[in-house]
Amino acid sequence: MRVNQQRLRSDIESNAEFGAVPTDEGRGRTVLTGSEADRRAREFFCERLRDAGLSIHIDEVGNIVGRWVPESADPDAAPVATGSHLDSVPEGGIFDGPLGVYAGLESIRAMQDAGVEPVRPVEVVNFTEEEGQRFGGGLIGSAVATDEMDSDEALAIEDSDGIPLGDALADIGYRGEGRLDASEWDSWIELHIEQSERLEDANVPAGVVTSIVGLSRCSVEITGEADHAGSTLMDDRSDALAATSEFILDIERATNERNEVSETAVGTVGKLDVSPNAPNVIAGNTTLTVDVRDVDYDSIEFIIEEARQSLARLEDQRPVETTLEHPWDRQPVEMSDRCRRALHDAGADANLETLDLHSGAGHDTMHVAEVTDAALLFAPSRDGISHNPREWTDWEDCADATRVLAGALARLATE
Amino acid sequence: MRVNQQRLRSDIESNAEFGAVPTDEGRGRTVLTGSEADRRAREFFCERLRDAGLSIHIDEVGNIVGRWVPESADPDAAPVATGSHLDSVPEGGIFDGPLGVYAGLESIRAMQDAGVEPVRPVEVVNFTEEEGQRFGGGLIGSAVATDEMDSDEALAIEDSDGIPLGDALADIGYRGEGRLDASEWDSWIELHIEQSERLEDANVPAGVVTSIVGLSRCSVEITGEADHAGSTLMDDRSDALAATSEFILDIERATNERNEVSETAVGTVGKLDVSPNAPNVIAGNTTLTVDVRDVDYDSIEFIIEEARQSLARLEDQRPVETTLEHPWDRQPVEMSDRCRRALHDAGADANLETLDLHSGAGHDTMHVAEVTDAALLFAPSRDGISHNPREWTDWEDCADATRVLAGALARLATE
Repeated sequence: MRVNQQRLRSDIESNAEFGAVPTDEGRGRTVLTGSEADRRAREFFCERLRDAGLSIHIDEVGNIVGRWVPESADPDAAPVATGSHLDSVPEGGIFDGPLGVYAGLESIRAMQDAGVEPVRPVEVVNFTEEEGQRFGGGLIGSAVATDEMDSDEALAIEDSDGIPLGDALADIGYRGEGRLDASEWDSWIELHIEQSERLEDANVPAGVVTSIVGLSRCSVEITGEADHAGSTLMDDRSDALAATSEFILDIERATNERNEVSETAVGTVGKLDVSPNAPNVIAGNTTLTVDVRDVDYDSIEFIIEEARQSLARLEDQRPVETTLEHPWDRQPVEMSDRCRRALHDAGADANLETLDLHSGAGHDTMHVAEVTDAALLFAPSRDGISHNPREWTDWEDCADATRVLAGALARLATE
Repeated sequence: MRVNQQRLRSDIESNAEFGAVPTDEGRGRTVLTGSEADRRAREFFCERLRDAGLSIHIDEVGNIVGRWVPESADPDAAPVATGSHLDSVPEGGIFDGPLGVYAGLESIRAMQDAGVEPVRPVEVVNFTEEEGQRFGGGLIGSAVATDEMDSDEALAIEDSDGIPLGDALADIGYRGEGRLDASEWDSWIELHIEQSERLEDANVPAGVVTSIVGLSRCSVEITGEADHAGSTLMDDRSDALAATSEFILDIERATNERNEVSETAVGTVGKLDVSPNAPNVIAGNTTLTVDVRDVDYDSIEFIIEEARQSLARLEDQRPVETTLEHPWDRQPVEMSDRCRRALHDAGADANLETLDLHSGAGHDTMHVAEVTDAALLFAPSRDGISHNPREWTDWEDCADATRVLAGALARLATE
């Protein structure tokens, strides 16, 4: 089956114009949900869906579905679906999201061009607010489509100016009707850039995700005493930042230890705020987050238990007080064997190597996998960079990954 | 010699009204140089100087000098001087600065009341912009009075709105003429709150400073790579915050090691900024300051050398790059034996215990000590708190320290 690289590239490059930001290097865009850039990106997507002869449905939270029902298909059969998201982080790249959306559309066009005769409808989806940059924590469209979140709840989520998602979508003309129900799909595959370097390092064009990691996030506060840095002797100090430094290294040590059992376990302190944060004042207080992920939930439990023990030890050895809250905990999600097999087989058909790997990042597929057979396909990202104008996937790699996607969708739709 | 505690307290409490801020606990004030609060504080001070029969001189950088020339004194003799500052940090306490100014004035009044017959004039000074909260780095009035800084340079220092110090002083009517010349003084003693707990812990009302610490400040930058916290395995990371944590603990360890030689050595990382500072992004970059102080400059050299070695080790062991700049370096300053003796003797005369200690904080006295015999006297501060509305020194402690100050000034002025 022939994928039209030029057509795919043209779509992604056209989409990159919406919310385009000036950059020294690479190509950047800012497409926040409900913005003018989002409106234009959605409008162009609908136009391209119509060009391909697809019918369009927009649900109440703005999820856009392009539906292809070929003559060969039973219109009542459970559809095979694909897609991703068109929104971006501020000054994000042009592939994260749009590649999956337009590769999905290109896959349908490739099937049309090749005369594939699916027995099921095929749908391509743009999920609303995947990035969570304006409304809430992200993955909102897929949360509603999988009944993870009530649509009224989603529509009421307010941005920092107090504007609800529902109003923002209505403002740009993309608050539709009904609820997209992903549980009605036969199967789902999302193509996304890898945001890591494993494919690049292995020189393989397509990664088949085995599992999406579970994720726990803890909020930690360490309180000492904010004293004068000049007049407080070392023995009299309760330095919250020194204690925090021990904790950060304990997290790193525990995660490295866990890597002997599960090499995919990661633990990160990426956010740390120090108070009062003045050169001549001993830190009185720090707040930080611990982000722990693995495909094996035991790793998450292990590292968080080590974090608790580290804090207990610090309270014992230094005059500090600590708290740990654990507001966010998500189990790992395994991808469907059937969909993964379709991807590997499609790779073999196209003479393209495929590699099993895990996903360390969450994606809409994480939600979809809860309600139907789902898979996640990765294309290489140069140097693993994403959420940045320097994010890049070669057009040839985009096309190769789309070949694998199209082949797998064709296999699932003709089964 | 009898000190009038009620008169001293009334002066300090009246002064506390200028720039008073509402607080839940304690008493706070914000008196920035050149503000209306500063104008009123200066005006009240001048009024109290006049009430005590002192002549007033205001120099070109706004330093206020109240001068007492008793009949017993040679008006041409080198004066004995005392004082401190009336400005404050934002929402600072009511004792840091004003205690030294009004205790100086109370000492003169006590000498007058007791019929002490000095052979030298006695002067009490309010130095401009000690705190450096609006203009530059602080200690400006004393820097000009000791020729550390040119007065034109001082007057040209701009606040964040571009207003020069000279204009700000003129606006409130306190840009005077000539330059106060501290080198013409026979001797100088400043009373200040301790901002530490040594006197409180020892239950001693007066601390005689032996040395003011030297101070070095370094700016350190540690650069790793800001990668996705989920999709970057532990072995592939260049985590700037983990590296920084090692550095912070190395500074603490080196300082503790140095404490075996010099127990007054302190090393502090109080300011740390993490970039991009997001829960799901590995820290790509940190900037931090290292503040190192001791009465023994060798300690400062030792700790900064250890800091450099720590960074070299980190570059060796982790894929990070580091820089260290060393923009601020000040030698320790020893106090005058003659002035310290006068303080100890005055304590003995008043039946008040005195304790030798060092100052970990800089004060105007640091400058004055460069040009004449100078000493620094500490009064206890409750829990060592300062720069905060909870800063507190009991009125009895204020009076006791003033008894020691007055006795020492009387000794120096009658010598």
